Amino acid sequence: MREASVKNAVTVELKNGESLSDLQRDGLQIIQHPGLFSFGIDAVLLSGFAEIREGDRVADLGTGTGILPILLAAKTKAAHLTGLEILAESADMAERSVRMNGLDDRISIVSGDIRKVEDYFTTASMDAVVSNPPYMIADHGRGNPNGAIAAARHELLCTFDDVARAASYLLRSSGRFSLVHRPFRLPELFETLRKHHLEPKRMRLVHPFADREPNLVLIECVKGGRPRLAIDPPLVVYREPGIYTDEVLEIYGNDRG
Amino acid sequence: MREASVKNAVTVELKNGESLSDLQRDGLQIIQHPGLFSFGIDAVLLSGFAEIREGDRVADLGTGTGILPILLAAKTKAAHLTGLEILAESADMAERSVRMNGLDDRISIVSGDIRKVEDYFTTASMDAVVSNPPYMIADHGRGNPNGAIAAARHELLCTFDDVARAASYLLRSSGRFSLVHRPFRLPELFETLRKHHLEPKRMRLVHPFADREPNLVLIECVKGGRPRLAIDPPLVVYREPGIYTDEVLEIYGNDRG
Repeated sequence: MREASVKNAVTVELKNGESLSDLQRDGLQIIQHPGLFSFGIDAVLLSGFAEIREGDRVADLGTGTGILPILLAAKTKAAHLTGLEILAESADMAERSVRMNGLDDRISIVSGDIRKVEDYFTTASMDAVVSNPPYMIADHGRGNPNGAIAAARHELLCTFDDVARAASYLLRSSGRFSLVHRPFRLPELFETLRKHHLEPKRMRLVHPFADREPNLVLIECVKGGRPRLAIDPPLVVYREPGIYTDEVLEIYGNDRG
Repeated sequence: MREASVKNAVTVELKNGESLSDLQRDGLQIIQHPGLFSFGIDAVLLSGFAEIREGDRVADLGTGTGILPILLAAKTKAAHLTGLEILAESADMAERSVRMNGLDDRISIVSGDIRKVEDYFTTASMDAVVSNPPYMIADHGRGNPNGAIAAARHELLCTFDDVARAASYLLRSSGRFSLVHRPFRLPELFETLRKHHLEPKRMRLVHPFADREPNLVLIECVKGGRPRLAIDPPLVVYREPGIYTDEVLEIYGNDRG
């Protein structure tokens, strides 16, 4: 049996095919499976965009391997973070990553369905909700033979409407929902968010290069907020191919190297 | 009596307090009244953003002094352009500007109410609709003592919902609605447009300077279009204070100086 542990010397089992990735912050590591969905820059950028305040109770809808709660535990003074994940295999990896990083006092992983959020949480029990949901409508593009990757990329197990409904259920009045998504769905995202009383208040477009179209959008909503959107300056990911801009390096964390 | 005429030697009367502004394109001029609302860069940028094709029948909702039909007549091969304006004083100026520029064969000015668009036009009679509507919700900000300026800036005589409804009524299937508005209202704009089957397909944010927040947004919708938004690169207005960028100079027209 392979084992892994981080600074706090909690040892967890690494299952067949799993690997460890260094999060380049506070010595944190995360268990991933190369054959399943691995976290991308999307989650990292969202962890830098979401405004989590001291003492916040935070939920992550569709947490996958737990990347967002683990990054936010390191970056913020949130009181508690809960990751909800429908795929048992991913939830299990997330739970072991939390223990391995010594974060079990601040992070809970719940194995469950976003569409049944009422079964696990009471309404208005969160100050903030974050989500990096599937971007593609279920019938768009070619299907992926791997169920876990397909479910992370395509709206097979939940639609954006399901995610927004769950976020609205979980948030207290004036609580914040921060998400990352694709700009090509922006009109529909705004409509769905507003339908669930999540008013978009801040938006930031993410461009791979300064002169390229944006391929991600970061959105912060306030539950029951008054309509008025602020648009942050564009976030550019790469200075040149393979080299991050200073801002992205800063979001990744300052303790690399 | 003061008179004015342009290249075609059609002479029109200039009424008390009115002045002529050079549009810096094809020798065109427009009658304005300094005490009323004067056209801004918004209309000029929209004239560069709207994709008007050869033979298009085009309507401008809330045409004011007729700036958009006059610019689009010069820039495009539209078959006919109709400006609808509720304020009789503005419609009268627009009508004289059209005659003065010798454009009466291509532009009609209709004095009427956007909310009663059915009284003047049949449905699906336009290939394209443009609008530079009032940006501010009626109860926002301080009131302006001048009725014409207040009506051009605030939603006193029509709401954005009225404008979108009229655009949808006028457009044939797959016709395009192009508008300019304020980014802070983007979520609501998208929701209202979609409610009226006007799918946002292209958007461009306008920044006064490269490092400043956008203060205008250009949006192109397709009636009954499939959801998928493209985001054009940011449009920057000023290279330095008082000096337009090359792109804005090009939109204004190449025959200045």
